[in-house]
Amino acid sequence: MGVVVPLESSLDQSGGRASLDRLLELSAPSMRDVNTMIVSRTGSDVTMIPEVAKHLIDSGGKRLRPILTLLCAEMFGYRGDGHVKLAASVEFMHTATLLHDDVVDESDMRRGKPAARMVWGNQASVLVGDFLLGQAFQMMVEVGSLPALDVLSRASAVIAEGEVLQLTTAKNTNTTEDDYLSVIRAKTAALFSAACEVGPIVAGLQETERAALRSYGMNLGLAFQLVDDALDYGGTAKDLGKDIGDDFRERKVTLPVILAYRRSDADEKAFWDRVIVEGTQDHGDLERGIALVRERQGLSDTITRAQHYGAVACDALDGLPASAQKDALLDAVAFCIDRVT
Amino acid sequence: MGVVVPLESSLDQSGGRASLDRLLELSAPSMRDVNTMIVSRTGSDVTMIPEVAKHLIDSGGKRLRPILTLLCAEMFGYRGDGHVKLAASVEFMHTATLLHDDVVDESDMRRGKPAARMVWGNQASVLVGDFLLGQAFQMMVEVGSLPALDVLSRASAVIAEGEVLQLTTAKNTNTTEDDYLSVIRAKTAALFSAACEVGPIVAGLQETERAALRSYGMNLGLAFQLVDDALDYGGTAKDLGKDIGDDFRERKVTLPVILAYRRSDADEKAFWDRVIVEGTQDHGDLERGIALVRERQGLSDTITRAQHYGAVACDALDGLPASAQKDALLDAVAFCIDRVT
Repeated sequence: MGVVVPLESSLDQSGGRASLDRLLELSAPSMRDVNTMIVSRTGSDVTMIPEVAKHLIDSGGKRLRPILTLLCAEMFGYRGDGHVKLAASVEFMHTATLLHDDVVDESDMRRGKPAARMVWGNQASVLVGDFLLGQAFQMMVEVGSLPALDVLSRASAVIAEGEVLQLTTAKNTNTTEDDYLSVIRAKTAALFSAACEVGPIVAGLQETERAALRSYGMNLGLAFQLVDDALDYGGTAKDLGKDIGDDFRERKVTLPVILAYRRSDADEKAFWDRVIVEGTQDHGDLERGIALVRERQGLSDTITRAQHYGAVACDALDGLPASAQKDALLDAVAFCIDRVT
Repeated sequence: MGVVVPLESSLDQSGGRASLDRLLELSAPSMRDVNTMIVSRTGSDVTMIPEVAKHLIDSGGKRLRPILTLLCAEMFGYRGDGHVKLAASVEFMHTATLLHDDVVDESDMRRGKPAARMVWGNQASVLVGDFLLGQAFQMMVEVGSLPALDVLSRASAVIAEGEVLQLTTAKNTNTTEDDYLSVIRAKTAALFSAACEVGPIVAGLQETERAALRSYGMNLGLAFQLVDDALDYGGTAKDLGKDIGDDFRERKVTLPVILAYRRSDADEKAFWDRVIVEGTQDHGDLERGIALVRERQGLSDTITRAQHYGAVACDALDGLPASAQKDALLDAVAFCIDRVT
C-alpha cells in the first residue's frame, strides 16, 4: 500500500518505505549518554535489580520514547544534559510499566523473550518496577525542573489509571471505540506525549512549543498503539517483535475487534463472545478471528484511524521552525504507519 | 513491664502506659485536611480506583507517617498547607507499598480484613498502587519543593530496593542481624525518616533540623518494625491488628528468629530449617516456634534492640527547641516500645 501520510522526506532510496535511519542517527550521540545513565542507575548492591533491569532493557525495544525526548529538546538547540536524564526517566517509567503489565496480564513472553516474571517471579517484577519508578523520579528531581516533574508525574498517574480502566473493559465485546480510545490515550499515548513535552520544557521554551509537541506525542502514541493492534491481527510488516494473535489469545478487546464485532451478524457475535468473553478458544479460532476482522473492515479501518492520528501528529508540528529533528519526528510518524500498510 | 525508654511525659494518668493521645490531638486539625486531600486525590472516573483506595485507607491504620510529617513541620511554626500535601503523599506512598506487598507476599489478609488482592485481584493491587504513587508525586510537585521531592523520591527507590533485598533473604535462616537491619532500614525506616525530614524542609529549616528529624524518623522506624516483629511472636499488647504467627506461617525470617536460630542446638536448627526453609509446618509448630524464640531470648533481645533504636530516636531530638510537637514525637517512641513491653 505504501505510505499514506504524505511525507516524502520519510521515503528512503531503497524502495519507498519509511525509515527511522535519520532519527536514529540524529539521536545517537545523546542516546549513548542515555544508555550510560540507564546502566548506572540500574546498579544496586541487590543483584536481582540490575539482572531484571538488564533483561528487559536488553530485550530489544526501539527506545523510541527517550529518543523523542532528546529530539524535542535538541530541535530548539538545547545543549545541556538535563534531557539525557529526562530521557532515561521516560525509559524507566516505560520499563516499569512493562514489568507491571506482565504481572497484570499474566504474560509469559515479552518481545519474544520470557517475561521477567517467568524468570524471577511476579514479586521481582512488581518490586523492580517500583525501584525503576523511584529512580526515574530521582533523576527528574536532579534535573530540577518542576514543570517537567509535573508533566511526568501526571503521566505516571494517568498511565496507571488507564491500565485500571483497561481491566474494567477487558474481555467485554461491547467496549465502544470511545472507551477504547480513552484506554490507549492513557496507557500508551500519555507517555509519548509527556516524553515529547519535557523536551521544550528543559530547553526553556514556553506554552506554544510545549503544546505543539504534547499534541504531536499524544497523536503519535495513538497511531502507534492502533498500528500495534492492527499488526496483531495480521499486519504485513516483518519486524513485528511479537507473535500475531497475542491479543486474541489474551482476549484483549482492541479496535480491530471492536469494529468487527459491531458490524457482525448474530453468528459472528456468538463466535466473538465465545472466544473473548467466555474464553473458550479452539484450534482454528485465531484464523477465523483474523478472517472476520478483515471481512468486516476491522483491520483496514483501524489502519485508517491510525493514519488520521498520524496526520494530526504531523500537523501539530507545523508551527515549529524547520530542523533536522523536526524532519526526524515526521519520519517517526511515517515509519509507524508504514509498518502496517 | 512498663515503659523503658525514660519518657515521663508519655505516661498517662490511668496506669503508666504510654499514650498517643497528645500526638493525635495536636495533629487532628491538619489531619482533617490530609483526610480530605486523600479522599479527593483517590477520586477517579475509573470506579475501581476509589473503591480499592477506600478499602485500604479505611482499614484502620494509625496514619502515623502523615502525622509525623505534620508535626515535624508544625513544630517550627509552619502555617502553610504544603505539609498537608506532603503528608498525604507519604500516606499514598505507604498505601502503594502495602498494595504491592500483598501481591509480593501473596497475603490473604491485611489488618484483619481481606487483602485488596483477594477482593479485586492482583491486577488492581499492582495498578492502583501505581496510581497512588503517581498521585503522590503530583502532590509533591504541587508543593514545589525540590528538596522535599528529592527526599521522598529517594525513599521511594530505597523502599523498593529493600523489598527486593528481602526477597533474596527470604526463607533463609542464615540471614544475619545486619542483613535484616539493612532490609528494615530500607523497607520501613526510610519512609519514616523521609516523612519526618520533609517537615523541616517545607518549613524552610536547614540541615541541622533536617538531620535531627531524619535521624529521629529512621530510628523510630527501626524500633517500630522490631516491635512489630516481636509482637508477631507473642507480644502482650491487645491492639495487634494482625494475628500472632503471621510471620511464622509466611516463613519470614525476622529478628526474633534470627537470634533464636543462631543460639539453637542441632535439633532446634532442624526444626527452623523445616518450618522456614522447607516450609513444612504441622499442627503445634507455631507454638513450638514461639516457645523456642522465647527460650533463646529471641523475643526479649529483639525488644532490647527496639529500645536501643527508640533511645537513639529520642536523643536525636535533643537539639530542637521545646514544643508540644516535640513532646508528641517523644510520646510516639514510648508508645511504640510500650506496645510490646
